[in-house]
Order: sequence, then structure tokens, then C-alpha cells
Amino acid sequence: MSDFKIRRAAEADLPAIVALLADDALGATRESPDDLTPYRTAYKRLAEDPNQHLIVAERADRVVGTLQLTVIPGLSRRGATRSIIEGVRIHSEERGSGLGTRLMDWAVEESRALGVELVQLTSDATRVDAHRFYERIGFDASHLGFKRQL
Amino acid sequence: MSDFKIRRAAEADLPAIVALLADDALGATRESPDDLTPYRTAYKRLAEDPNQHLIVAERADRVVGTLQLTVIPGLSRRGATRSIIEGVRIHSEERGSGLGTRLMDWAVEESRALGVELVQLTSDATRVDAHRFYERIGFDASHLGFKRQL
Repeated sequence: MSDFKIRRAAEADLPAIVALLADDALGATRESPDDLTPYRTAYKRLAEDPNQHLIVAERADRVVGTLQLTVIPGLSRRGATRSIIEGVRIHSEERGSGLGTRLMDWAVEESRALGVELVQLTSDATRVDAHRFYERIGFDASHLGFKRQL
Repeated sequence: MSDFKIRRAAEADLPAIVALLADDALGATRESPDDLTPYRTAYKRLAEDPNQHLIVAERADRVVGTLQLTVIPGLSRRGATRSIIEGVRIHSEERGSGLGTRLMDWAVEESRALGVELVQLTSDATRVDAHRFYERIGFDASHLGFKRQL
């Protein structure tokens, strides 16, 4: 597993990241890997925002994993800063390799370094395997996650 | 209900906001209304971040509600921007008055105006009344919310 490299995503990584987002039971119906225009616009906003950390894992110069870490200041819990993890994806050929754990460890350590006290994520209720994974690495399914599409 | 005013929070609102955060079954053990120092530090970070919208509702010049809206750009769902609502609190004397709905409506409309496609929130699994409220106003409990304290 020592041959993974975790680094900040560059714009040139977008095709590989979007392919990872689309190669997923839920993502398959939501993404448009043939049209990167909306992703390029979103990438620019992410790159300009110091609270956003879009990350890729690569092995042998190939992007095989990604996640987005967002740092959120706030008043509650005595002014605690939170972080939120979104868009965790591991290449299908790399699942079970420990890369998911490595990426999440990175997100937790980066959060700690940034003074974060609480790391959060939501996971679709149908992703039962993912839930077991998050609990195994120390996350507590203490909340319900509500969404409203606009 | 027309006598509520919803506006951006000012630093002078901090004592009232922290009192609302603390006047809550879970917040009572987490907040320190007698020491505002950590809240002032957090307020400065919120005030400087264009993606943060800390809001209060006031009636007759008294703060009776608050929430925090965070705008999060992202790649997934074709570069969709999300918003996250945190720290929703309504003064105990104002519960059932429709103020919660008014505040949440504000957050949804502000999100729409900012180009947000998906509004999200997590709610502690023990807050059963809150869950009914969020479902009534159009949110879907489609996800599990995981947290890890650092």
C-alpha cells in the first residue's frame, strides 16, 4: 500500500476524478463524464476557496481515489470548527486495497492539523458496505442526514 | 408571524445566539454561555468567509432564532453547489409559532438565490420532533449522518 500518493487535485485530474464519480451505483445516473464543462466551473470555485481541499490518490501516475474535505467554522460546541467529507470514491480495481482507509486517515489528520474538532459525513442509506467501513474507522452513525433537492 | 425580522447576525448578537445554543437538551452540556471568548473567535472566521451566512430572527428587537447556512461548491452531481444548514435554534417561548418554518424557508430561498442545487442537514437521531419537522417542510431522510470527534 506504500505506493499510493495522496495530493491536492489539479485541473488536469478532472477527467479521472469525474470518471471515478460516475463509476458508482448512484453516480452513474448523476454524472456527465462526456461533458466536463460544469466540473471545470466547480473546480475553479474549489481551487479559490481556502476551506476546500479536493484530494486525489494516485498509484503509478494514475488517479485511483478522490475525496473532498470542507472546513466549516461555526458557533456551536463552543465555537468548534467542523470538517465535512464528500465525494469519497475509490477506483473499482482498488477496492479492498486499504486505499479507502488511507484516504480517510488523510482527511482526519488534515482536519486535526487545521484545528477541526468534529469530522462529519453523510452516506446514502443504501450504501450499507460504506456504513460498515465508516464505523470500523471510528465514525458514529449518530445522526440522520436530510436532503432537499432544489 | 409577520413581526419576525430575519437578518445577518452581528457580533453584538453573540450573547443571545449562544444563549439559544445552550437552551437545548444537547446544547446544555456542550456550550459555555458564561465565556464568550471561543464564540468571538469563531464569529470572526464566519464573518470573513463569503460562503458563511450566520442568521438571526428577531422579534421586538430580541433575538429569538438562529441558523448557520454554509455554501459548498463541489464536483459531484455535475458540479452541483450544496448548502448545509447547522445550528438551527428557536427560543423556547417561540416554538410552535411558525418561526422554524420561516427560518428554514429563508435558508432554502437564499440557497436557491446562490445557485445551490441541494440543501443538506444532519440531525441527531434523538431529535425525533425535529425529524418530523424537516420531513414536513420537504426534506428527505435519505442518508445516515456519521460523526467522529477529534
